[in-house]
Parts: sequence; structure tokens; C-alpha cells
Amino acid sequence: MLENSELQRRYETLDTPFLFVDKRIFHRNLERLRNKIDELGAELRPHFKTVKSLHAAPYLLPDKSSPITVSTVKEAEALAGAGYTNIIYAVGISAAKLPRVHHLLSKGIAVRVLLDTIEQAKILNQYSHDNNCTISALIEIDCDGHRGGIKPDSAKLVDIAQLLHHGAAHFQGVLTHAGESYLCFDQTFLRTAAENEVKAALNAANHLRCAKIPCEIVSIGSTPTAHSYQDLNGITEVRAGVYGFFDLVMAGIGVCNINDIAASVVTTVIGHNKEKGWLFIDAGWMALSSDRGTANQPKDCGYGLLTDSAGNMLYNQQVISVNQEHGIVGSVDGSPIDFDAFPIGCRLHVLPNHACATASMHSYYHVFDTADNSYEVWTRILGW
Amino acid sequence: MLENSELQRRYETLDTPFLFVDKRIFHRNLERLRNKIDELGAELRPHFKTVKSLHAAPYLLPDKSSPITVSTVKEAEALAGAGYTNIIYAVGISAAKLPRVHHLLSKGIAVRVLLDTIEQAKILNQYSHDNNCTISALIEIDCDGHRGGIKPDSAKLVDIAQLLHHGAAHFQGVLTHAGESYLCFDQTFLRTAAENEVKAALNAANHLRCAKIPCEIVSIGSTPTAHSYQDLNGITEVRAGVYGFFDLVMAGIGVCNINDIAASVVTTVIGHNKEKGWLFIDAGWMALSSDRGTANQPKDCGYGLLTDSAGNMLYNQQVISVNQEHGIVGSVDGSPIDFDAFPIGCRLHVLPNHACATASMHSYYHVFDTADNSYEVWTRILGW
Repeated sequence: MLENSELQRRYETLDTPFLFVDKRIFHRNLERLRNKIDELGAELRPHFKTVKSLHAAPYLLPDKSSPITVSTVKEAEALAGAGYTNIIYAVGISAAKLPRVHHLLSKGIAVRVLLDTIEQAKILNQYSHDNNCTISALIEIDCDGHRGGIKPDSAKLVDIAQLLHHGAAHFQGVLTHAGESYLCFDQTFLRTAAENEVKAALNAANHLRCAKIPCEIVSIGSTPTAHSYQDLNGITEVRAGVYGFFDLVMAGIGVCNINDIAASVVTTVIGHNKEKGWLFIDAGWMALSSDRGTANQPKDCGYGLLTDSAGNMLYNQQVISVNQEHGIVGSVDGSPIDFDAFPIGCRLHVLPNHACATASMHSYYHVFDTADNSYEVWTRILGW
Repeated sequence: MLENSELQRRYETLDTPFLFVDKRIFHRNLERLRNKIDELGAELRPHFKTVKSLHAAPYLLPDKSSPITVSTVKEAEALAGAGYTNIIYAVGISAAKLPRVHHLLSKGIAVRVLLDTIEQAKILNQYSHDNNCTISALIEIDCDGHRGGIKPDSAKLVDIAQLLHHGAAHFQGVLTHAGESYLCFDQTFLRTAAENEVKAALNAANHLRCAKIPCEIVSIGSTPTAHSYQDLNGITEVRAGVYGFFDLVMAGIGVCNINDIAASVVTTVIGHNKEKGWLFIDAGWMALSSDRGTANQPKDCGYGLLTDSAGNMLYNQQVISVNQEHGIVGSVDGSPIDFDAFPIGCRLHVLPNHACATASMHSYYHVFDTADNSYEVWTRILGW
């Protein structure tokens, strides 16, 4: 995998388990989506929640004023501290988080918050009024019944927007996320989900404009739909998170191939159970997460598929079980495991079901670039 | 829940989600098991993997030479740095981790490693010989077919022990873990699992002694069996990890009650979906983990049961779904949710399915002691 001997030495020196990032693949994945969205005339607003590392931000974003999405106020604070200025905090806002948002606003950072209730709009108006500031908000639109949000044609959409528009806070636009697209398994379904997401956002924006409420931002996105849009006319921006690392869930949906997965967990074989046909590895849920996102896909990948350290897929084995610091590798097709091929001490890579979850188990990523033979450690932003 | 107004103020000041520890309950749980094992004449060797905080170590251990178990070399290094000297690293050893173990040994820390193969014994002998040190090892015994280990009556047990005993490394004893006890649901099964664990360890030790190999340590344990032993004659020590925090899996097994659970995730209601009967909370898998350990128990608790911030159980709701930073609270019995009782901004506590997994999602724990009205922040040891 690592033809350069200095890179290979570094790789071997690291204690397992650790999160390995192939920077060349990561970069290729980022370019792929950015080019697609550029061509369709919208802006990409990457979701920081997957990589959550300031070291990765320059790869995600062309410059410090480029749009980015975050899932925690902590991410917004870290990005702001590093000079990034254009942020959407895409989790429903509550009153208790407003002082930290306000603090960022007061430093000149454009942080927008998300809401979908009258109560939240009242809270923002009250806070803005009481603190002599202007909290900017987007309204979450429900495009597919997946989680939260307001239906595009709902009267409540106009009510909430009007409250903000005429209140001390500021209404800036609409945002939707096709969460149901994670359940798509073919291109037809994906395109339908993508078109539906676009349509819901445009309908919501039009609904508001008919009510004379300006709708500056029309934000849509999920990694599956982002790779499937045909026409983004009227859409201002697209959000996606896992598209940089990719994972087995995305491969199962069909938006990437297995060899587009840029992040894996490097692990060591620490035991054999020849009677049961098991290899033990030193990567359990503490290193992999216990995400089972492929459980409902046509190909259930257990707790992860495997490659050897040269990158060759092990087609007959997967991680079938995890404890805190143990993983069990077993056969998936009844073929016996060749224990001599996997001696104690040898290394394997586990490809993650869900890269957001697997990356979240690591405070550091070990980033290898086979294009320029460089090695970096990226630190992850922890907490909320 | 917090009668003291200063404690209550601190609680309210913290941003959600955060891990809340009720120190009074934690302490009560620790005392309960320590007293039981004391009475049965064995030593308790707490497993550090659940709390993984040096701030918690003085509560787990009577003094710096008290026995402790770890799941990572990083934990051993942190404990050694704080003066703790009696450690078992209870995950199968591989060659690459020996230099760090050796480094601890050279500082006078008694760190023992675990193995269950001839290959590993040869590696330890070779390393000890080449580095002029003595790596001490325990052999893992398979008491219930759960994961790894050697059967107590296996000839291989003597072969491995003899290799160590006559080699440059040191054989120090046997260790077993009744992993299958997590599948027990009544006292009869638990007692049987506990007796079986004791018997397997004693058989293995006797088997070795018959072969003239001294067996100084006879170590057994799992939280379910540890609370169920009747007789520990011949057993030198008992290991348990989750018994300090406890969780819904342990309550389901019957070794604790719901009100013995000392750790919970404090979360805020951030949205309502009245059509679907959902509350949205700001605790997703990032705060709760995606552990579904109760899925195969008689009572499936989803992603966690709930209390209000006064500690009253919500009997009709649980966390039914999680995304990265969102949890969905739904009805479990079809009864409608009283949305007025859970306004946006109100706080709930999520009781964890699996405290080891939930605690692992937090770098800090917020520890409230209602006995002396103190508040502490405990930091968690991260990484490997």
C-alpha cells in the first residue's frame, strides 16, 4: 500500500488500533463532489461533522469565507478560532446555546441557526431583542418525513418565517435534508430522492416569497442525493458530510465504490480460535464504533469489511462481532479461514460501516499521502 | 434531584449534552461489590475500562498497590504515572505492544499481560530474553465458549504455561471471563454462570499444579457473575467493570435496579413532531453511543430510557432512534406524548444501555455528589 519506505516505516511504528486516512483518496472524493456541484451552479457547504478536524478544513474549503455546516457549537467555535466565518449550525437551536452563538456573532462570524417551531422563533426574537443582536435563522423543511422540519406547503412555515422577519431576529432561508435517501439502493430511487429534495426546498422558498418574505439561502443536501442531482436551478447551496471519507453504507447505496473509502481502522491480529474459525483483532467497538448501518442493506457488512495491509480485500471474511477492545473476524460464506495467512501480529484494515461514527471514536487520524509521500496527524474536535 | 441550590445552578449552567454522574450512587455501587468480594475472601480487581478516569481511581481502589485491570496500554501508562503499581492488561498481547509494557516494568510497575496461544508465549520468551527483562503473563481460560481462551482441561494449557515457566518470561496464573453471563435473565442462570466461571478457573489452576506449574493468580469475573458468587474458595481475585456506573443491560440481567444507574446523559428537548408523536433531543449517538445491548433482552430499551431532571422515570417513552446529534423520543405503548409537559428547552436524562459505551463518547464527566454537595469534573483517558 505504501511504496515509500519512510511512509511504510511510520505506518509500522504506530500502535494499533488507529484511524488511517488515505489522503489521495480523500482529496479525490472531495474534488469529485465539488466539481459536480460547481457545474450545476450551486455552492458546496461541506458538513464538518464527519472529519471534525481543523487540519482537514483547508481541504474541504477553498477559503476562510467558504460556507461550512456544523453539528455542534464546539465545531463552530473551533472554526471561528481558525478564521472561518460562514457557518450554519444545523441542529435545532435551544435557548441555552444562544449565548455561545451570540459570542461568535459578536466576533463577526456569520453563524446561522436552525429551527422548525413557533416557540423557537419567539425565543430567537426575544434573545435578539434583549441582547441587542440579530440571530439569523433558517427554517428546517421536511422533504421526506425522515425526522424534523415543516412541510413546504404548511401555513406554519409562513407563520414562523414572518415571526422572524418582523421580529428582532432575522429569517435567512430554508434548509432540508433527504434523510430517507440513506435507504435508497439504486440509481432510480436516488434520483427520485434528489429531485424530491430539490422540489421541497424550492416549494418552500416559493411559498415564502409569495408571502413577501425574502428567502436568501435555499440549502439542501445529503451525501446520497448530493451525488445524484441533475438540476440545481434555484438552489443556493448543497450540504454533504461523509463524501470525503465515504464508507460501506455509501458503497451499499451506490454513490461510491469500496476503493473510494478513504478511512479505515488499522488493527492487529491478537488471537486465533481455530475451533470456531475466528481471528481476534485489537479493534472492538472502541475503535470501530458499534454502528450497524449496513444491517438493512442488501449486503450486510457486519461491523466492517477487511483488507490486508497491502489493500487487498478479504472477500470471505468480515468483522462479525465486537466487544470493547476485541473484534472477532469470521467467515461469511462458510469457507475456512487460513490461519497461517493471518498470523498473530499481522495487520488488517477494517473499512467502516459509517465513517462519521468510526471517526468519532478517534482523537487523532493518521493521514498518509501516497501522492507526495507525506504523513500528518490530524486532531479531532471533541465534545459539544 | 439536586436539592442544593449551588449544585443546581452548576447543573443548569452546563451545556447539553453532557455525562452526569451521581457520585453517591456510584460510591454505593462500588461499596456493594467490594463488601461482597471481601466477605467471600477474594480480592477485587476493578476493570478500569468503564470509567477510565484517574479522578475515579481513588474510589475504585483502596490504595496505590491495589489490583486493577485495564483494556489498553494507555490506561496502564496513565495509572502508572499516577502511582498505581498492580495492573493486568486483559486483552491478548501482541509483539508490537511489548516495548510499552517493558517500559512500565522497568519503572517498577507490575503489569501482567494475557495470552492464549503457543505463538504468543514464544514471543514473550523471545522478547524477555532479548531485552533482559521478565514479562509476566496470565493464560486466558475459556469458561463458556464466549470468545477466546483455552479450555481448562486442554493439553495446550500446560504446553503454554510450561513454555513460559521454563522460558525467559514468567507464568503467573489464569484468568477467565464469563462473557455469556450477559445473556442471563434470572438468578438461577446467573448463579450457574458464576459457579461455572469459578469451576473453570479452579480446574485450570489444578490442571497446571498437577503438572508442577505454580499458579499464583486465579482471576475470574464479569459484572453479572461477580454479584452472584456464593463461594470463592481457591479464587484469588474478581474483576468487574460496569458495576460502578451500572446500566440498563445490567438492570435487565437483574444485578441492579434502574435507580442504581449512576451515569446518565443530560439532554435538551430541541423540537416536537406532533404529527408523529416525537420529541427531538440534542443527544444522538455522539452522546449516547449506538449501543443496542438491550435489543435481545426481555425489555428492549431502544437507545435508552428517560427520566426528567428531577429523576422521575418516564414510563411511556424511550429514545427510539438516534442520528449523530439528534435523538428521537417516542411512545413505547401507543399513549400520546403530552408535548406541553416537555417544552422546547426542558431537560431530560437518558439512562444508558451500556455505560462503558456511553461513557466512551465523553472526554469529561460531570460528577455531582448529593452527599456533600460537591461538584467535580472527571477527565477520561482517550486513545490506546
